[in-house]
Amino acid sequence: MSSTDTAGGDGAYDALLDYYRRVSNLRQADGILMWDQQTTMPAGGTPARAEQRSTLSSLEHELLADDELGRLLDRAAEAATGDAERAAVREIRRQHERAVRVPDDVVADIARVESSAHETWVDAKAEDDFDALAPTLERIVDLYRERAEHLDASKHPFEAIYGDSEPFLPLSTVEEIFEDLKATLVPLVEEIRAAEELPTPFDGTYDEASQTALSEDVLDRLGYDWTRGRLDTAAHPFTFGNQFDCRVTTRFDESDPLAGLTSTVHEFGHATYNLGLPDEHYATPLGESGSHGVHESQSRFFENHVGRSKPFWEGFVGTVNDRLGSDATAESAYAAVNRVKPDTLVRVEADELTYHLHILVRFETEKALLGGDIEVSEVPAVWNDKMKEYLGVRPETDSEGCLQDIHWTAGYLAAFQNYTVGSVLAAQLDAAMREDVDDVDGLIRAGEFGPIHEWLGANVHRHGRRYPTDELVVEATGEPLSADTFCAYATEKFESLYGL
Amino acid sequence: MSSTDTAGGDGAYDALLDYYRRVSNLRQADGILMWDQQTTMPAGGTPARAEQRSTLSSLEHELLADDELGRLLDRAAEAATGDAERAAVREIRRQHERAVRVPDDVVADIARVESSAHETWVDAKAEDDFDALAPTLERIVDLYRERAEHLDASKHPFEAIYGDSEPFLPLSTVEEIFEDLKATLVPLVEEIRAAEELPTPFDGTYDEASQTALSEDVLDRLGYDWTRGRLDTAAHPFTFGNQFDCRVTTRFDESDPLAGLTSTVHEFGHATYNLGLPDEHYATPLGESGSHGVHESQSRFFENHVGRSKPFWEGFVGTVNDRLGSDATAESAYAAVNRVKPDTLVRVEADELTYHLHILVRFETEKALLGGDIEVSEVPAVWNDKMKEYLGVRPETDSEGCLQDIHWTAGYLAAFQNYTVGSVLAAQLDAAMREDVDDVDGLIRAGEFGPIHEWLGANVHRHGRRYPTDELVVEATGEPLSADTFCAYATEKFESLYGL
Repeated sequence: MSSTDTAGGDGAYDALLDYYRRVSNLRQADGILMWDQQTTMPAGGTPARAEQRSTLSSLEHELLADDELGRLLDRAAEAATGDAERAAVREIRRQHERAVRVPDDVVADIARVESSAHETWVDAKAEDDFDALAPTLERIVDLYRERAEHLDASKHPFEAIYGDSEPFLPLSTVEEIFEDLKATLVPLVEEIRAAEELPTPFDGTYDEASQTALSEDVLDRLGYDWTRGRLDTAAHPFTFGNQFDCRVTTRFDESDPLAGLTSTVHEFGHATYNLGLPDEHYATPLGESGSHGVHESQSRFFENHVGRSKPFWEGFVGTVNDRLGSDATAESAYAAVNRVKPDTLVRVEADELTYHLHILVRFETEKALLGGDIEVSEVPAVWNDKMKEYLGVRPETDSEGCLQDIHWTAGYLAAFQNYTVGSVLAAQLDAAMREDVDDVDGLIRAGEFGPIHEWLGANVHRHGRRYPTDELVVEATGEPLSADTFCAYATEKFESLYGL
Repeated sequence: MSSTDTAGGDGAYDALLDYYRRVSNLRQADGILMWDQQTTMPAGGTPARAEQRSTLSSLEHELLADDELGRLLDRAAEAATGDAERAAVREIRRQHERAVRVPDDVVADIARVESSAHETWVDAKAEDDFDALAPTLERIVDLYRERAEHLDASKHPFEAIYGDSEPFLPLSTVEEIFEDLKATLVPLVEEIRAAEELPTPFDGTYDEASQTALSEDVLDRLGYDWTRGRLDTAAHPFTFGNQFDCRVTTRFDESDPLAGLTSTVHEFGHATYNLGLPDEHYATPLGESGSHGVHESQSRFFENHVGRSKPFWEGFVGTVNDRLGSDATAESAYAAVNRVKPDTLVRVEADELTYHLHILVRFETEKALLGGDIEVSEVPAVWNDKMKEYLGVRPETDSEGCLQDIHWTAGYLAAFQNYTVGSVLAAQLDAAMREDVDDVDGLIRAGEFGPIHEWLGANVHRHGRRYPTDELVVEATGEPLSADTFCAYATEKFESLYGL
């Protein structure tokens, strides 16, 4: 490839951004291909799509690893004036360095294994046959251990890989958070298990058309900008996009309309983050969203602190009853959407409390696996033991145990903890917002989300990647990340709900 | 970018293909982005999409122009054994040479102008304001003249650009075809203008749901493989895809159900070509479709020689009546779908005969424009004069005249003639097929398209880009491309329909 022209002096920063925009746009293009694959593509398209996405990701890697980028970074670092420019340089340099450290053949091997791993996982899960997945998983673990060694041989392999998705939050902070959550949630869930189950007014069958209309209603109420978004269904709901086009997906369960509704609200939180990124910084670090954990804080804020709050149901239950033909009150719906299900074996069906214990099982299992403390063949037993220890239930099949998640075969290793980081941060943001914004409950009840969006925009969305996660948390909430606010919030909420 | 490893000797051909696959996959990725933009993308997404597509096309250009590709080509040319391999090398070399000849800044300037030209055109057309488009069109014409100069200064600029879309059919052949068409069609259309208009049994209003169902029916009947395709609507219907995933789009007019049906059948022809390309050659020249004209021969074959044939309506009119609640006979529907509309000013609404006179207007206007014989400001007058001369009607507005087509602002210059090449070739293929396949009419009537697909597959689809267009035509039909077969077919068909 021809090298990019580089300007010295004043033009150095712009030249760096011009170069980086290609990387960012390749990612955006790949995101559209992924979105299409999950929502729209005919089944036969898989072989071609795999090649297309592999081409995009290898080009992205080559652009990031190129010496030319190193030179552009050096010049831009000298020329950069102001915190914002320095932050953009920092973000690009971090990606350059990670790309340079990992040899091309390791990158290519990972891409190759992952290109067929997903199908192997789908089959293994369907057949409840962990042994069918084991060789692929061994290969993936080996390759990620190799990747970790290249990234930073001085660190635990899990920590090195963790830096992919969360570069600026010490792993020790996450470990402390899990210790605190374990101490609070394990006994709380035990108490709830002994208490009376909360009833639900949604015990019928609800067709997809009604549920779709309800999801559209809730997106309208939350303030989704349909000129820059859409709603589709996908087997594994996700959100993809940028400040100009950010799309929500959801899925519907005919017997559980709250699942689809909650999923839509969750994905709305992701979308509103991306749509709140500054237009003028599109495809540069100041116009890209922060870490996975920060992103999850936005989805969890809307899912839990809005969608699972009493004021929300006081304002929205009428719409729900109209769409579903149900007869719920704000109180009965609020209780139903907050039912704790300690016997649920599947993470994505878990509630606001047990969810983090599911994550803890994964966090510890992955750490042991990447650290070489356990073999792949031991994963089912280790997983099941931890489920029993933290949740009091033991999966009877691996399909409902360690085969349930898409992550390990989709290139998301050492990433589960980010979901918990997101929830913990969401609670902290919620508390900080209530210091600044009058009567948040009243706004949620009335469906007036403007001031809430403004606060999140000013404190999170509009910064892009300007602040490292740890700084962003302190800037936005006035204190470092910890489980304290979440634990206090969750204890009060669920003790009240269950009359403990 | 790091250079690609290249193998010598036996591996040279594979190394060339590995390199080229990235180019082809970038195009496929861009095609999905285009498809999404036309069918699915929320309106707000345009600015980001433009940047994404610009990144993909500039990377494609850089890969094609890279010296490394030249070296790979030289080695592969020495190592290539067999006609198929040599053909692939030829196809890649042609693209490399065209990329090398045009300087990067011209490529970038064209991309930049085109990125906003589409919107300018949409507005100018809506406002019937040619002057609003003129400066943009001047810039485009200048840039394409510059491009032509770099491609081959010894050729007429139109001919040099023509080589982008049809590298292997002498322009003189196309010019002869137009002379013959003019001689046959202008008087034939004049006679038809004087004859009685054919009636239509479809004079009601037909909702989109019924028309969608009918389009699905016709795709079923023709043998569309839904596991590798989909049907969507788009303002300007098109087909995009490859042998694994090829998608049809159409559009519906409530007052004219034949328009949508015919559009679907046309696009099916494009799709069945791509879906018939050999899987094992995906993303290489032997697995890519031939020139624009050859592609159009497949859509025109199905549109005209199937969808506008009497046997087709003898087999399908019942389904149409069921879906539309109409009361057509095979004869009345056949007449309606073949109505000649000499007063139609809009190309995409034209019939099988006048269509080519619309193309002739464009062909001659574009040639004069690119050749520097006329200025952009003269286009409306030149256009309207030619319309009067060939079709006997003069547009009263530029919106219905020279502003009607998307092509000039979308990077398709010197390309309109390919549609006519497609029709002419379709007639020649139809005649050749009838030499080899028993009772084609009976097959079409019965909806048994297997032998027809087999013949087209064996003679066109499965070759990919192996044969240059002129050779492909001789291989498939036994004679060089000319207007003779089309003129004979059209004269007989329309004299019979109009009782001339």
